[in-house]
Amino acid sequence: MGDIVFTGSVEQELKKIIEEYGPDSVFFLADRHTYCHCFSLFREINILQNHIILIEPGENHKSMESVEKIWKVLISKGARRNSVLINIGGGIVTDVGGFAASCFKRGIKCVNIPTTLLAQVDASVGGKTGINMGGLKNEVGTFSIPECVIIDTCFLKTLPVRQILSGFAEMIKHALLQGGPHFQDIFSLSPESLSERISLDLIKESVRVKENIVKSDPTEKGIRKALNFGHTVGHALESVAIEQGVEFYHGDAVAWGMVAELYLSVKKRGFDENLYQQIRTFIRTLYPFYSFPVTEEKLYGLMLHDKKNEKEGVNFTLLKAPGDYIIDNYCSREEILAALKSLV
Amino acid sequence: MGDIVFTGSVEQELKKIIEEYGPDSVFFLADRHTYCHCFSLFREINILQNHIILIEPGENHKSMESVEKIWKVLISKGARRNSVLINIGGGIVTDVGGFAASCFKRGIKCVNIPTTLLAQVDASVGGKTGINMGGLKNEVGTFSIPECVIIDTCFLKTLPVRQILSGFAEMIKHALLQGGPHFQDIFSLSPESLSERISLDLIKESVRVKENIVKSDPTEKGIRKALNFGHTVGHALESVAIEQGVEFYHGDAVAWGMVAELYLSVKKRGFDENLYQQIRTFIRTLYPFYSFPVTEEKLYGLMLHDKKNEKEGVNFTLLKAPGDYIIDNYCSREEILAALKSLV
Repeated sequence: MGDIVFTGSVEQELKKIIEEYGPDSVFFLADRHTYCHCFSLFREINILQNHIILIEPGENHKSMESVEKIWKVLISKGARRNSVLINIGGGIVTDVGGFAASCFKRGIKCVNIPTTLLAQVDASVGGKTGINMGGLKNEVGTFSIPECVIIDTCFLKTLPVRQILSGFAEMIKHALLQGGPHFQDIFSLSPESLSERISLDLIKESVRVKENIVKSDPTEKGIRKALNFGHTVGHALESVAIEQGVEFYHGDAVAWGMVAELYLSVKKRGFDENLYQQIRTFIRTLYPFYSFPVTEEKLYGLMLHDKKNEKEGVNFTLLKAPGDYIIDNYCSREEILAALKSLV
Repeated sequence: MGDIVFTGSVEQELKKIIEEYGPDSVFFLADRHTYCHCFSLFREINILQNHIILIEPGENHKSMESVEKIWKVLISKGARRNSVLINIGGGIVTDVGGFAASCFKRGIKCVNIPTTLLAQVDASVGGKTGINMGGLKNEVGTFSIPECVIIDTCFLKTLPVRQILSGFAEMIKHALLQGGPHFQDIFSLSPESLSERISLDLIKESVRVKENIVKSDPTEKGIRKALNFGHTVGHALESVAIEQGVEFYHGDAVAWGMVAELYLSVKKRGFDENLYQQIRTFIRTLYPFYSFPVTEEKLYGLMLHDKKNEKEGVNFTLLKAPGDYIIDNYCSREEILAALKSLV
């Protein structure tokens, strides 16, 4: 595992790390948004004295074109084996930059500085890098751990609430998988001014949940599937939203995905029904409901073709209780349609 | 480490392996040359019932264009996580195919069937994949071990002598690094009808030498540099040949590179001078001398800019005796120029 540093002074940490590596040259990767909103937070490191590589923002640019652009700049500026690439941005920037670094000269050092809550609690751990191809998400990529990830809440102040909520859905997922005091901490947060209540300590705890699961299964052969909780239904909702051009964030989809999969957990694994109702209310208070027209049959069809389903049938991670999960639950068409109906 | 199978019946082995994996789908990668010369050796496996991906032959096509072509076919034919890619060809095909497989869906199974002696004794071991970019060799790639490598001498019959010699240079290198009986076996081979004298057992022994070195240093931090013996000078000669459009094979360059680096070994590490003269004669008998016009200064300049030299100065692996090598010898400009002059 690479280091994950939680800090209130990202710039000091970055300086320390660069000094420690003593690289031939330093490259900064960002998209235009991060470049405008986040680079001004660095005052002492003269970023402009280093090489800056900018890619276009947005899922469309999580592409080979962006990766080749990075490689070409690295080559033209004479990057060597001990050069380092610093990725500053959301999950798209860290996924694209991580992939580029992992293949350049068969792997140069890279440091991720995630600037969204989603990237901090999710993409920062697990060493997945990737780009989209042929209309499919993360079709090409590597498992590659960055040398270091630096997490600082200062960046969260640059984000709109909807973006915070998108990351918070993954924190809810981690809390459900972990149970115990962390579960209590997350579900006792007041929905008002949520952004300010998400402390570095809460993020740290959330990251640790994922880290512990990934450590025991780095290449996703078994237990790591637990992290797919909420995502089987969630991905189907997200696909429809993208298809219809509706603004419905990843976290919104995962939040409602978790409600549906908790319903399945109640029916098939004896998850407490009262607790399910409380969680459902918590999510309904925070997240916009999906208002686009879609049939349960359509969503079911999308789940059946998700690449995570290796054989026939739809595979779910379900919960017996917070902190007590079971992977590889195959659910029937009828069970899934009932869970989707329960959302409405 | 993946399996390396030495066999006289490649087709039976391949059938067994495919049955064992039980993949969703099987893809065969080749270039036009291998497709014409080698596919006819498969009679029982109906390759045409599977998907065939063809790339153009030659170093120019060790490129991102070839890799993207492979990815696009895999996507369009619905390859899944447990699909398998079978790379049949020389080092270019296995390097390109290995890279494509290692990144597709973050890594699908791949089997290499090297059809040149060079690919059998060199590219088959070590898990290096890669493509050229911006005029630089292997600028982009991964460390990724194929699931299995199948080595069969039947393919060598399809090769011209010059190609056999190109691979044999790496066998000479392995023999020098190994010493002992294997060194005797290689240097007692009669130069006449060399092709027929290179047995599966000799190839196996040669592969084991590389395998043992790679095992102790998979990502080339230290001792693996031993495998660079002959290549510091060799790469410089090869670069000039490419620049001048002269037909001078990788193995020719490495063979003369070894002569120069043995000269340095005599001067700096006490390698036996008589033995050096014998090896020099052995190589002079087998390999064409480089006849293109080039100054020692030009070759020295190329070595200085080789990407394997992380700091200033030129780094060599030198020998005290066959089987007794020392990595990280920095040689002076004068020493290197003298070694180059000694070749003529």
